[in-house]
Amino acid sequence: MEIKDLGEFGLINRLTKDIQVTNVSTIKGVGDDAAVLRYSDRETLVSSQMFMEGVHFDLTYIDMEHLGYKVAMVTMSNIFAMNGQPRQLIVSLGLGKRFKVEDLDLFYAGLKEACTKWDIDIIGGDTTSSYTGLAINITCIGEAAKDDIIYRSGANETDLICVTGDLGAAYMGLQLLEREKTVYFQQVQEYNNKVKEAQANKDEKRLEALRRERAVIEDFQPDFVGKEYLIDRQLKPEARGYVLTQLRQAGIHPTSLIDISDGLATALKHICEKSHCGCRIYEKNIPIDYQTAATCEEFNMNLTTAALNGGEDYELLFTVPIGDHEKIDKIENIRQIGYITKENLGTYLIARDGNEFALKAQGWPITKEK
Amino acid sequence: MEIKDLGEFGLINRLTKDIQVTNVSTIKGVGDDAAVLRYSDRETLVSSQMFMEGVHFDLTYIDMEHLGYKVAMVTMSNIFAMNGQPRQLIVSLGLGKRFKVEDLDLFYAGLKEACTKWDIDIIGGDTTSSYTGLAINITCIGEAAKDDIIYRSGANETDLICVTGDLGAAYMGLQLLEREKTVYFQQVQEYNNKVKEAQANKDEKRLEALRRERAVIEDFQPDFVGKEYLIDRQLKPEARGYVLTQLRQAGIHPTSLIDISDGLATALKHICEKSHCGCRIYEKNIPIDYQTAATCEEFNMNLTTAALNGGEDYELLFTVPIGDHEKIDKIENIRQIGYITKENLGTYLIARDGNEFALKAQGWPITKEK
Repeated sequence: MEIKDLGEFGLINRLTKDIQVTNVSTIKGVGDDAAVLRYSDRETLVSSQMFMEGVHFDLTYIDMEHLGYKVAMVTMSNIFAMNGQPRQLIVSLGLGKRFKVEDLDLFYAGLKEACTKWDIDIIGGDTTSSYTGLAINITCIGEAAKDDIIYRSGANETDLICVTGDLGAAYMGLQLLEREKTVYFQQVQEYNNKVKEAQANKDEKRLEALRRERAVIEDFQPDFVGKEYLIDRQLKPEARGYVLTQLRQAGIHPTSLIDISDGLATALKHICEKSHCGCRIYEKNIPIDYQTAATCEEFNMNLTTAALNGGEDYELLFTVPIGDHEKIDKIENIRQIGYITKENLGTYLIARDGNEFALKAQGWPITKEK
Repeated sequence: MEIKDLGEFGLINRLTKDIQVTNVSTIKGVGDDAAVLRYSDRETLVSSQMFMEGVHFDLTYIDMEHLGYKVAMVTMSNIFAMNGQPRQLIVSLGLGKRFKVEDLDLFYAGLKEACTKWDIDIIGGDTTSSYTGLAINITCIGEAAKDDIIYRSGANETDLICVTGDLGAAYMGLQLLEREKTVYFQQVQEYNNKVKEAQANKDEKRLEALRRERAVIEDFQPDFVGKEYLIDRQLKPEARGYVLTQLRQAGIHPTSLIDISDGLATALKHICEKSHCGCRIYEKNIPIDYQTAATCEEFNMNLTTAALNGGEDYELLFTVPIGDHEKIDKIENIRQIGYITKENLGTYLIARDGNEFALKAQGWPITKEK
């Protein structure tokens, strides 16, 4: 169905009509000039993130449902990264002409799945047109008791540096998807060349055979057997909210906390900058999944670079007082990778051979070459 | 200066380093995973709006400073439209490669001017790249005491329908800007044709003369004398926050309230739909500025259509109990344009000749033809 047949208000109504708000802090959701929330004695946390087609996602390998799920998870990850509980989501979409109502249905299905997982209410947004690609902005609102909030700025000298899960997997998933995309487009190009040649030769028999071949190419299914974990990490990231509960139950209150969106190095440098300290992390302690390592080798890429700068892991990075060492040890899926130092000692990785390498931060490329 | 020379973090730092937060509700602004707010016994209001280049703005006639001012005003207007006080702003930008650091400086200058006018803190956002045009998302957060909030849904039969300022001016400003843009591009095309002809004839003298002419064309200054008000309404809209103070001081509590972004007809239909009622408004009572009327005549356009469907006025539309008639009368700049009826009576405009016309709502065109 064409979006213009529904119009702005018809589309918004279709996408939001079955949304039920469940949080007590949501007084009024979709349907007025602004949403109304009530947080009383808790602090309100707000974070906004923009996702541009071609820069942050490529619709040749992520479908609209996964995309909806991913942008919701990525944005709520920012609230967890303050040790808060995400509660509400606001969704803005700029839609190119090629999008159909069904695409939006899928996008919202993914969005709602992510929100249901963490009991989050979709409370509003904006739906408009775009001359070109798809633009998405998600604002996530959450809450925390004042004393529970963990900033990037609280790390102290001798604190232990900890990280959840494993790193570099989402980045290697991206490499796999990019490779398959290249293979697919090569096949299409080769096919088109064959057709042109047959047309030039007026070879009707060959053209008939090529027409049958077409369906096979269109039905291209990339082979990711044995790499499912990497693809999942790229297409369906999970915010690490449960870790905060584990830490609370273990009586651990991190001194600083951030989520790893642009790679471990960038996240760690943010903490060190805001906390006015330095750090040492050990290459050998960086948690890496077996599939990540195997795929790095296959691609002839540096594994540590993938983990340090790969991005999109959405694991949590935090620091704890050194006295919490044993408590942390007992929690599965958390790895101690190094320690905080005085600021003048800089931010370094200690390689397996004992050499030290300065960590380099990098954000999203602001001007990406086309 | 090229943005890539600064990088994401350098750019954000440059744009936000002089921002001082002033609201007591702003606990922590720019610089962490999320902003931290505290609203205690007040309700939190949140509204998000997306602006896409080519759809919502055209950089051939709005400069970056006006654009920054406008997107801030438009979004905070949504908070006023709940009878709330805007307090914080979150800014997301998707930037095409052609933008320079200086463009962003200007954009932030406009943004800050609008925020200073209403004591609003810029508390965060996202800055990223775009493959194509400029994408902007603004989230505005505000507050109101629970009983002060005015929804779209509170209008009752016999309520008076009131509107602030005048309507249709921003739309006619847009017509003027569009016309001048056409004139400009015609001049450029004619000039290019002359150059081509001279080149074909190898007429060096003529080419020399054309080189001098070039500066004149590049210095094209559209003539808006006598139309300044319309241009201002289009390029520098003002949110009508002061009207809420006037109403409070006069002891008037509107039963419903909305801002007029997509034209009077759409706003009124939103109120009627949410309040389950109908309405009658009088064509003769719709407030229109002299410049709007004169320009409509010049363009041979229907004045009432411009006021009903023109959009971008950002005036406030509200309803009050009929008993407030005299109180409203005493407030300058507010016009009573009609009354609320039972739902089954529909939503109609009563023309000057007594005929009734059904009001039609229209949103932003979701799929705009290029």
